[in-house]
Amino acid sequence: MASLMKSFVDVSPGSQFPIQNLPYGVFRPSAGASPRPGVAIGDSVVDLSVLSEAGLFKGPLLSSSSCFSQTSLNAFMALGRPAWKEARKTLQKLLSDGEPTLRDDHVLRSKAILPMNQVTMVMPAVIGDYTDFFSSKEHAVNCGTIFRGGKEDALPPNWVHVPIGYHGRASSVVISGTDIRRPRGQTSPPPGENAPEFKPSALLDFELEMAAFVGPGNELGKPVSVDEAADHIFGFVIMNDWSARDIQKWEYVPLGPFLGKSFGTTISPWIVTMEALDPFICDAPEQDPPALQYLTEKNRFTYDIPMQVAIRPKGESKASVISNTNFKYLYWTVCQQLAHHTVNGCNLNTGDLLASGTISGPSFGSLGSLLEMSVAGSREVKLEHGGVRRFLKDGDEVVMSAVCEGDGFNVGFGECRGKVIPAFNS
Amino acid sequence: MASLMKSFVDVSPGSQFPIQNLPYGVFRPSAGASPRPGVAIGDSVVDLSVLSEAGLFKGPLLSSSSCFSQTSLNAFMALGRPAWKEARKTLQKLLSDGEPTLRDDHVLRSKAILPMNQVTMVMPAVIGDYTDFFSSKEHAVNCGTIFRGGKEDALPPNWVHVPIGYHGRASSVVISGTDIRRPRGQTSPPPGENAPEFKPSALLDFELEMAAFVGPGNELGKPVSVDEAADHIFGFVIMNDWSARDIQKWEYVPLGPFLGKSFGTTISPWIVTMEALDPFICDAPEQDPPALQYLTEKNRFTYDIPMQVAIRPKGESKASVISNTNFKYLYWTVCQQLAHHTVNGCNLNTGDLLASGTISGPSFGSLGSLLEMSVAGSREVKLEHGGVRRFLKDGDEVVMSAVCEGDGFNVGFGECRGKVIPAFNS
Repeated sequence: MASLMKSFVDVSPGSQFPIQNLPYGVFRPSAGASPRPGVAIGDSVVDLSVLSEAGLFKGPLLSSSSCFSQTSLNAFMALGRPAWKEARKTLQKLLSDGEPTLRDDHVLRSKAILPMNQVTMVMPAVIGDYTDFFSSKEHAVNCGTIFRGGKEDALPPNWVHVPIGYHGRASSVVISGTDIRRPRGQTSPPPGENAPEFKPSALLDFELEMAAFVGPGNELGKPVSVDEAADHIFGFVIMNDWSARDIQKWEYVPLGPFLGKSFGTTISPWIVTMEALDPFICDAPEQDPPALQYLTEKNRFTYDIPMQVAIRPKGESKASVISNTNFKYLYWTVCQQLAHHTVNGCNLNTGDLLASGTISGPSFGSLGSLLEMSVAGSREVKLEHGGVRRFLKDGDEVVMSAVCEGDGFNVGFGECRGKVIPAFNS
Repeated sequence: MASLMKSFVDVSPGSQFPIQNLPYGVFRPSAGASPRPGVAIGDSVVDLSVLSEAGLFKGPLLSSSSCFSQTSLNAFMALGRPAWKEARKTLQKLLSDGEPTLRDDHVLRSKAILPMNQVTMVMPAVIGDYTDFFSSKEHAVNCGTIFRGGKEDALPPNWVHVPIGYHGRASSVVISGTDIRRPRGQTSPPPGENAPEFKPSALLDFELEMAAFVGPGNELGKPVSVDEAADHIFGFVIMNDWSARDIQKWEYVPLGPFLGKSFGTTISPWIVTMEALDPFICDAPEQDPPALQYLTEKNRFTYDIPMQVAIRPKGESKASVISNTNFKYLYWTVCQQLAHHTVNGCNLNTGDLLASGTISGPSFGSLGSLLEMSVAGSREVKLEHGGVRRFLKDGDEVVMSAVCEGDGFNVGFGECRGKVIPAFNS
């Protein structure tokens, strides 16, 4: 504790963004300005384009790179782990309390370090493909029971062998704070009818997920082994995979979810790096039956990341927490997901997003969707600050957060938030 | 016939690329050169960057546009139908036999018009998202019978109401001529076993499809109506949606196809525009039950496009034709697909690809996959030049083509070809 690294930038006790975190995002310093990469520290944002132009990245991999002068993080993410480590080392040194370079250069400092509440966060990366996995055993069992009936057969026979995933819609992945329009669509025929209904979704839900950004990709036809997979992961963001359960239920056989998901997917703006998450490594669940060889990790681990979901109804000032869960419950790790994804030769590109699937824990208070909490709408979910929900109402804001508690510091993800607005009226 | 438009560029009788076609592609004139847009005419390619630099696009929408100086067609496709019509009018005039501007300027002509066999075709557009539909009723019934058993229940109950689609993998869409590596993956446990196998796919297949490139997109939350949909479609290419049936069968419940498809998808290089396909408009199949209102077209039509599949085994000089089918058999039109895709508010971007799904006709000779022709491998498919197939062997080249026969001219798509190479050996 005595030797805990500190920054000259103000970081309040308990802040999610101490010098031990330094998550990457992309922001506009003012309305007209072009987006540029930054890192969060305390309540401030460090403009990496300014530091780069000032020649402060002096390491061999970054000194002549233009990666921090781009409007997305893709160029930086493509450089790979050695460059990420170099950047982290440089930034931790530049921002540490004993280092005068930036601390005492008041002109540079005022240009490079901006109050977070004065900047606008934008999408951190250009996402090529977005893949959504289905890695929580608890969630898979809960969904199987609800959608296919019968707890005994709830888990499909492939589930314990295959890190099941599907292609999601990349175009509608949006940054935290973007309103989500309630989707319209076809739903099952009402009892006694043959024709489906067409209407705004009546069963709008969230799904709490964690999503990994791919750093260096792989060539088409060249799989990445499970033990090499970690070097392809740049960092994590919180994701809300908004889901319209009634649309999803009617459409998903036989080709999977489509319009029940593609109307919007929200991510938190700050990408927390694997280096920052290192202190929170923990054991991953044991796998029974054992995974096939291509999915067997020499060093199997995951991360202890407590996560939370809250709902703030329209007009309310307080959000009601409805779930406390943890990333560590997931059965399939991100390395297993990535190895599986590429084992057929599929190529990943820098900026691709691999989402975990809904994160549900073993207890009632640790579920990752209203579908599960309300048991498909059959029970009311109580909001601590008043009201009940089975599914989301117009005006509801869903706020997801995740904070790792370290020894004397936190490593947080900030928030992933989005408000439901009424359906399109043609 | 007397008034049929002709070009001064050599176009042999029966050519797929007469002046009535003018499909768009992107090519490299030589190995080191940067890619640029072109149109095909006869056995030649017209370099649009050269015509544009020479100031020959004089219309109001294109005279000051840099869309033909890009390395993809996205900028041109984003401009929309008025600009596409202006480009077509300009090109048909410039290339017509009575027009001296290009015909008699020998320096410009030799720079702008290149032999097709000396250029290299590359991907015509940057594809954001790729969506694959499931629009052939015959194919859906055949697959249902094979995968789910029983011809009576073969068609899922939603099929006649929903233009079913799913998100495909955009990163592995490749240009015709790219080798396709046989994928490895998990397949169902052998009889009496509990654990799945991991091996190179033994049931590798093609799927004959047509895919539409999206021109102007739509904003997130703003659906496109079925009667506006046509203005968002730039043109069509042939697609081979390579499929590993054994991997697909084991993985696809409950979230749909993933690694059974994502190892490669081939498209033909020339995008045939809707304007060129106008003479081939025909009635689309009647829909019973009637489509829901948002899918009901004021003017319902499709295109009469004969399509063919052939296999050329390793070492053979001749390809054996194994299917003759037609785009017009598809139950759901591309306008219905696009309206459905956006009805929930999902945004499409310029360059997105909407594929039809496997095109199977009503007869045995008009099926679009080996799965159907061999009835899941239970029968041999005879190759006219020798050999039989149930599924594809290493070294097999699959060649797909499509040619519309007009009144005195053809409008063809060229070829979509790809050769199967052996699985990755780690």
